Amino acid sequence: MDVSDIGALTFDVFGTVVDWRGSVVREGERLGAQKGFDVDWPSFADDWRNDGYTGGMDRVRRGDLPWMKVDALHRLKLDQLLEEHGITGLTEAETDHFNRVWHRLTPWSDVLEGLERLSKGFVLASLSNGNMSLLTNMAKNAGIHWDCVLSAELSGHYKPDPEVYKAAADLLGFRTDQVLMVAAHKADLRGAQGAGLRTAYVTRPDEFGPEGHVDMAPDPSFDVSATDFIDLAAKLGV
Amino acid sequence: MDVSDIGALTFDVFGTVVDWRGSVVREGERLGAQKGFDVDWPSFADDWRNDGYTGGMDRVRRGDLPWMKVDALHRLKLDQLLEEHGITGLTEAETDHFNRVWHRLTPWSDVLEGLERLSKGFVLASLSNGNMSLLTNMAKNAGIHWDCVLSAELSGHYKPDPEVYKAAADLLGFRTDQVLMVAAHKADLRGAQGAGLRTAYVTRPDEFGPEGHVDMAPDPSFDVSATDFIDLAAKLGV
Repeated sequence: MDVSDIGALTFDVFGTVVDWRGSVVREGERLGAQKGFDVDWPSFADDWRNDGYTGGMDRVRRGDLPWMKVDALHRLKLDQLLEEHGITGLTEAETDHFNRVWHRLTPWSDVLEGLERLSKGFVLASLSNGNMSLLTNMAKNAGIHWDCVLSAELSGHYKPDPEVYKAAADLLGFRTDQVLMVAAHKADLRGAQGAGLRTAYVTRPDEFGPEGHVDMAPDPSFDVSATDFIDLAAKLGV
Repeated sequence: MDVSDIGALTFDVFGTVVDWRGSVVREGERLGAQKGFDVDWPSFADDWRNDGYTGGMDRVRRGDLPWMKVDALHRLKLDQLLEEHGITGLTEAETDHFNRVWHRLTPWSDVLEGLERLSKGFVLASLSNGNMSLLTNMAKNAGIHWDCVLSAELSGHYKPDPEVYKAAADLLGFRTDQVLMVAAHKADLRGAQGAGLRTAYVTRPDEFGPEGHVDMAPDPSFDVSATDFIDLAAKLGV
């Protein structure tokens, strides 16, 4: 693609930058081993993600829940999951710490090198539905250097609402068509397209685990497609 | 001070982190030499700062100007200064580039080392009246790694309005008394105190040039005082 007019790259985070499922499963297994819980952690992680996060944002969008940070959506679902799985005896501090596993997700193996290369050519910002503190703590923990942490929280809307993408371009000081949204999820990229951003599709075949289904069919409406962030850097010429 | 409960440090930027006056004078002198303008650049810089930035924010606060980014306040004053100093013949691109000198300000000599040390103990965020893109570009240009770029722009208020400090603590996920505001300006620190933050005063005797006046009288109401960021790191035990 012609990148001469692109000033900034905005990144979806959960799934695109970090392996949320693997990270939650690993911390869950450690917690289970310490405390003697026998839990199907992959299923726990999927429920937490699908109903707590994705479902929670849908409930906010419909007005069934007031606006709240993703930390709070995660906690609502965690309390329910702990009960469903018969996990008792965690202190409030332990529960809060486990809820913040989403602040400690680990990046895919290509991410640090890819972002370092991309950083030479563009302003790099997160653009996640995760709240600002979640994204800030995650980046610090993982050694990711965003030029700017941006979140849906700043616009009071969740992706793929157009307000999120437009606010990001405005805060970064670019026109929407000077910003390239990078994501492993087509719905996110379609939201970005609708708001006037350019789009880069990065495939993450392992996001939902070894048996998970990922729609990786090519879509020529995206400006660029890449297999990881190093491939993306090469395709953007940096 | 007892820092055991401090989670994040928020930093004033113009004057506290970067030498705005020296940076503007240097770029002005280069522009003048290239274009053959004979301008008193220290006085130009002071006017730009005092009337364009500080005065501009006052006009926004009083309702004489609508809310606008500091980039736009800087540009309003720059257009006026160019005319006053008889500077003509700059293209729009050249004028816009010079207006963005505020995106290219250079840090005081202790800043990079001091922030690197402080980063080991705390979440570090800018908290400036400068707009998000100004702060993002400045940090990228200067090699400053904020964990999170925060600006007054996010609350639609300018410091020292309490909304700015409260919004920063909320976005960083801390109570206001878990956040330490670092500034070389007492009015900023008093604003932070009023919003419930802790305060660190860092003296910057050269902010206003060799003949400029800086009020460096000790104020025991601040939680800590330091001569630079390395001294601040030592006083915070990191």
